[in-house]
Amino acid sequence: MKVTVAVVGATGYTGAEIVRLLAGHPNAEVAVVTSERQAGQPLRSSCPWLATDLVLTRFDPCGWEVDVVFLCQENGFAMHHAPSLAERSRVIDLSADFRLTDLAQYPAWYRLDHPGGLEPWPVYGLTELADRRALGQARIVANPGCYPTASLLALMPLAEAGIVAGTPVIDAKSGVSGAGRSKQETDFLFSELAGGFKPYGVTGHRHTPEIEQQLGMTVRFTPHLLPIPRGICSTIHVPVTPGVNADTVRGLWRSRYEGRTCVAVLDEGFPSTKHVLGSNRCLLAAAVDERTGYAILVSVIDNLVKGAAGQAIQNMNLMLGLPEETGLPLAGVWP
Amino acid sequence: MKVTVAVVGATGYTGAEIVRLLAGHPNAEVAVVTSERQAGQPLRSSCPWLATDLVLTRFDPCGWEVDVVFLCQENGFAMHHAPSLAERSRVIDLSADFRLTDLAQYPAWYRLDHPGGLEPWPVYGLTELADRRALGQARIVANPGCYPTASLLALMPLAEAGIVAGTPVIDAKSGVSGAGRSKQETDFLFSELAGGFKPYGVTGHRHTPEIEQQLGMTVRFTPHLLPIPRGICSTIHVPVTPGVNADTVRGLWRSRYEGRTCVAVLDEGFPSTKHVLGSNRCLLAAAVDERTGYAILVSVIDNLVKGAAGQAIQNMNLMLGLPEETGLPLAGVWP
Amino acid sequence: MKVTVAVVGATGYTGAEIVRLLAGHPNAEVAVVTSERQAGQPLRSSCPWLATDLVLTRFDPCGWEVDVVFLCQENGFAMHHAPSLAERSRVIDLSADFRLTDLAQYPAWYRLDHPGGLEPWPVYGLTELADRRALGQARIVANPGCYPTASLLALMPLAEAGIVAGTPVIDAKSGVSGAGRSKQETDFLFSELAGGFKPYGVTGHRHTPEIEQQLGMTVRFTPHLLPIPRGICSTIHVPVTPGVNADTVRGLWRSRYEGRTCVAVLDEGFPSTKHVLGSNRCLLAAAVDERTGYAILVSVIDNLVKGAAGQAIQNMNLMLGLPEETGLPLAGVWP
Amino acid sequence: MKVTVAVVGATGYTGAEIVRLLAGHPNAEVAVVTSERQAGQPLRSSCPWLATDLVLTRFDPCGWEVDVVFLCQENGFAMHHAPSLAERSRVIDLSADFRLTDLAQYPAWYRLDHPGGLEPWPVYGLTELADRRALGQARIVANPGCYPTASLLALMPLAEAGIVAGTPVIDAKSGVSGAGRSKQETDFLFSELAGGFKPYGVTGHRHTPEIEQQLGMTVRFTPHLLPIPRGICSTIHVPVTPGVNADTVRGLWRSRYEGRTCVAVLDEGFPSTKHVLGSNRCLLAAAVDERTGYAILVSVIDNLVKGAAGQAIQNMNLMLGLPEETGLPLAGVWP
Repeated sequence: MKVTVAVVGATGYTGAEIVRLLAGHPNAEVAVVTSERQAGQPLRSSCPWLATDLVLTRFDPCGWEVDVVFLCQENGFAMHHAPSLAERSRVIDLSADFRLTDLAQYPAWYRLDHPGGLEPWPVYGLTELADRRALGQARIVANPGCYPTASLLALMPLAEAGIVAGTPVIDAKSGVSGAGRSKQETDFLFSELAGGFKPYGVTGHRHTPEIEQQLGMTVRFTPHLLPIPRGICSTIHVPVTPGVNADTVRGLWRSRYEGRTCVAVLDEGFPSTKHVLGSNRCLLAAAVDERTGYAILVSVIDNLVKGAAGQAIQNMNLMLGLPEETGLPLAGVWP
Repeated sequence: MKVTVAVVGATGYTGAEIVRLLAGHPNAEVAVVTSERQAGQPLRSSCPWLATDLVLTRFDPCGWEVDVVFLCQENGFAMHHAPSLAERSRVIDLSADFRLTDLAQYPAWYRLDHPGGLEPWPVYGLTELADRRALGQARIVANPGCYPTASLLALMPLAEAGIVAGTPVIDAKSGVSGAGRSKQETDFLFSELAGGFKPYGVTGHRHTPEIEQQLGMTVRFTPHLLPIPRGICSTIHVPVTPGVNADTVRGLWRSRYEGRTCVAVLDEGFPSTKHVLGSNRCLLAAAVDERTGYAILVSVIDNLVKGAAGQAIQNMNLMLGLPEETGLPLAGVWP
Repeated sequence: MKVTVAVVGATGYTGAEIVRLLAGHPNAEVAVVTSERQAGQPLRSSCPWLATDLVLTRFDPCGWEVDVVFLCQENGFAMHHAPSLAERSRVIDLSADFRLTDLAQYPAWYRLDHPGGLEPWPVYGLTELADRRALGQARIVANPGCYPTASLLALMPLAEAGIVAGTPVIDAKSGVSGAGRSKQETDFLFSELAGGFKPYGVTGHRHTPEIEQQLGMTVRFTPHLLPIPRGICSTIHVPVTPGVNADTVRGLWRSRYEGRTCVAVLDEGFPSTKHVLGSNRCLLAAAVDERTGYAILVSVIDNLVKGAAGQAIQNMNLMLGLPEETGLPLAGVWP
Repeated sequence: MKVTVAVVGATGYTGAEIVRLLAGHPNAEVAVVTSERQAGQPLRSSCPWLATDLVLTRFDPCGWEVDVVFLCQENGFAMHHAPSLAERSRVIDLSADFRLTDLAQYPAWYRLDHPGGLEPWPVYGLTELADRRALGQARIVANPGCYPTASLLALMPLAEAGIVAGTPVIDAKSGVSGAGRSKQETDFLFSELAGGFKPYGVTGHRHTPEIEQQLGMTVRFTPHLLPIPRGICSTIHVPVTPGVNADTVRGLWRSRYEGRTCVAVLDEGFPSTKHVLGSNRCLLAAAVDERTGYAILVSVIDNLVKGAAGQAIQNMNLMLGLPEETGLPLAGVWP
């Protein structure tokens, strides 16, 4: 089997990452790459790290004959274009446009009015937690946010098991690529960020409602900006019911993720974001602080791979009936 | 006034930082620098960034005629040597040897038996929270740990005001220099740490009892290693009593630190560790998450300056009756 | 076809990188991984970024039934062990032990007495410059050094064309991983190197004779240490014969590397080491400074991939009659 | 003595650095800070690392009563404004507007028509090489470029001694802050530069004519961008006359810089840019490669201190008759 793929918005970080990853995929080939501003130019002009002769075109899907479309655009694009694209291709949207099921939240968190109108609603593609059959049949998949991916993979099994005894405190840290490639602002210049670390979106980050929707409970969430391009570490301090220890947590994770190749539970020690650089894996580790009654969950991913492009391909694989890790690197690039 | 100073352990990061900072101090001059391994060599052989002709000697205090001794040694040294040094000089100890008043905690947290025997016990030199008169008279000052400095400056005014309504969750992040200069281990090699981020000491870091002793309450504390040499950011999620908002917190801080030049409360926004690189300031910012009832306190310092060498000099200044910021940089080195 | 592979010294940076890269290779499988110090432990204990269940063993090749052996040991190991290994397996040596054909140079540059005795002498595996038939028949391949790889790919076509009119000045810069994983020395600690840059081996680096041997001329060579884990940039200032311009240089490169997928010549602009992070490509760019009569050649590689593990696999591919880029990533990991 | 100072363009990197450094200067006080875009706001809004209450104003020098004006504007500003400012204040210009004495070069290298008309022409303020008396009397000083500072301090004593036997090859590397704070372009984003290294301005950098004008000879010059905010390393490969060795070079440097506190010649080893981070020193080291007849000179500075703001203050000190290092840090911030 060989499917053809369009990447809409191929010169941004997630779009280009899809092109990079699919170069190693045995069953998919990129046929179309789009960019409104660079149309007509070779993709490697904007992305010299890609070894490709693909030429950028405008977004003009009429003549496309592709099996899968990856949408890597700003929020507000997919909500208008995905439905018609889905008539001819399977669509995986990497924006936030279909992540929230309560459309009333879009104006509040994203300053966007959502047209809605989709039936059925796209599948939320946090791959290991999604329904495999639903993914297999989905016309549109909403690829999750990077922070929700890292946080929910750690938290959900505990929530499902009913051992969460209070508000989880999610203290998350992300590499700068999460901000995208078009932030031509002083705050994102190399010299301003190198060698420093700071919080942002301290009480109002947009991934908060996404996490809460999936988890079914309120969370305390603050992200920070790491002086590295890639990597997320989510440190979750969660009050747990009495008697829970680290083995309890690891046991829940192991049951939930049995047979899943892209999530690994550490027997001991704690992971670095660097362990998963360029990899589609999520590494999970836990401790319990008996003095305070908290479990501490640590979840690391590469925000552009398992947190975006890689998970999108993982979803594509399941949509196509392939093993989920097909064509995806599991080892990290170290050092 | 010009005092003379000895720096014991001058080739480590905190010792060398004291030498660097005192080069700009109008009232102090370094007369003695020690190193057991490099004795006889110029200090600049081990520390080529220092512009000095000082020559290293062994620790042999008999003939010293210095007003102030800074002890920058491993834990376990000062507890044996500070008492006799204190007979002739004022002593500021940068190790953990006098930070805990409950000596029974040393075997548990530091694997050291403490000889005790000091009367009065050294003053805990978290400068802005210490008693000025006690500092002025102290023969020995216990310079606080870097994490406790950042965390307590943020938390203490809230604890004193009685608005802490549950266990504070301290999620702290530090630059690598906190580990010291003698960690010749694979884990601290450049290639292993550059571009990554990880937690460590997840439930059992030694600064936990130090914070709890000062605060008088239990805390949930986990530190992380930032891929930068210097800087601490302590993000503290603290349940607060109803009605508390960000202005409440800033008001408490402003009252507590009125007239103190080394602590600044931000009116808006949140600080980066880079704002205080090389500076002796602590920057504080706050938000309140009304959805969850938590205040989020952010405190940044340079772990080697306000978190170690700078605060030691700040303490020296008060011991000598000088303005506390004498000779200390307040502006950060940016970018 | 599926060959089996042994990696001798699998916990170092180059050995682990071979394991990582072969995970994506369709025709090779790692069967044996060795480490004297970690024997008996899973490889992932020392290398948690690798997604593998392989268990480390001692170097005990008697019972091995592997087609290919990669030797990733310190200099001085392969010269004694490669000959007997080569009786049963194809051997690719990543040390310097067979790079120099004049054995008298080993005591001078490596402080090693070389036993010699090999007939024929191993093939120098700078893949694009090596004889394909010789590689196809070789029992032992000497994988080149990282600096020679970057420098010779740029310089050799000019030398062959006879347009080099004076001593080439090679000013090279490398990421820290080139120093290996066992440098537990102060000089290689994160805090000492982060945010800085310095030369080393200013007049006497060991890669000098390797470059000169291949090039057949004397070169001026100084390397520097970049504050990044991976990447080499070799900037070569070379006096050229009159009339040579950038097109001349690009033309020579294009002829020499026609059909070779792992070397790319840029039409315009200059590359960053980051364009080839994790990739087996070498990017070449040129300018001519007419005011001074110099051509400036810029060559970037990932020192651990095209400069070590990737090129070793590229050599294996040609030894086995596979396309040279089989299983090797050509796109860089960006950002 | 206490002079008052205006900093024109105080929110850029060099302007803010002057404010930072003057905070520790015993004889100067910043009275005016300007910014056209941020006028009316406190300086700390744009520069939160500065511990100051200064408020930004527009450039409106009519009412100023300041002794010294530092001009930190884009090229093209000072050539029009410095002459009138110089009637009332001493002026130090950090742009390129008065660095070249041959005005015909401005259109070619800077795309600017220079109005000229100054008599006498401003003093070129490479402090250690400038005429002290001329500096003491100068109304306008042209502060040198960062690359020329590092390169000329190394090369000039050799050129003066007549031992340069061929075109010097200057392979220079700079931290990103050299590009300034207003480069809101993709190429200068953190994610694009972190972990990479590349050349730029390969044959046509604007500092070339500045170096050549001072040196009186043609040079081969290529700069590169280091993934660090601050620091320049200039590695100069210079053909030397027979018999010259490293001691010869060090001897020339020592004679030339005797008594100068901001230049240090290393007895052995080579410096890192990190040794001078935040410091106003230039460190020089040399080797001679007898095989090729080249001397290799290594010169490191902090591009924002000795390469810009610090040297400007050093010039101010000599203009005012103060010791040149007054108020300037000589030790580097390490690690």
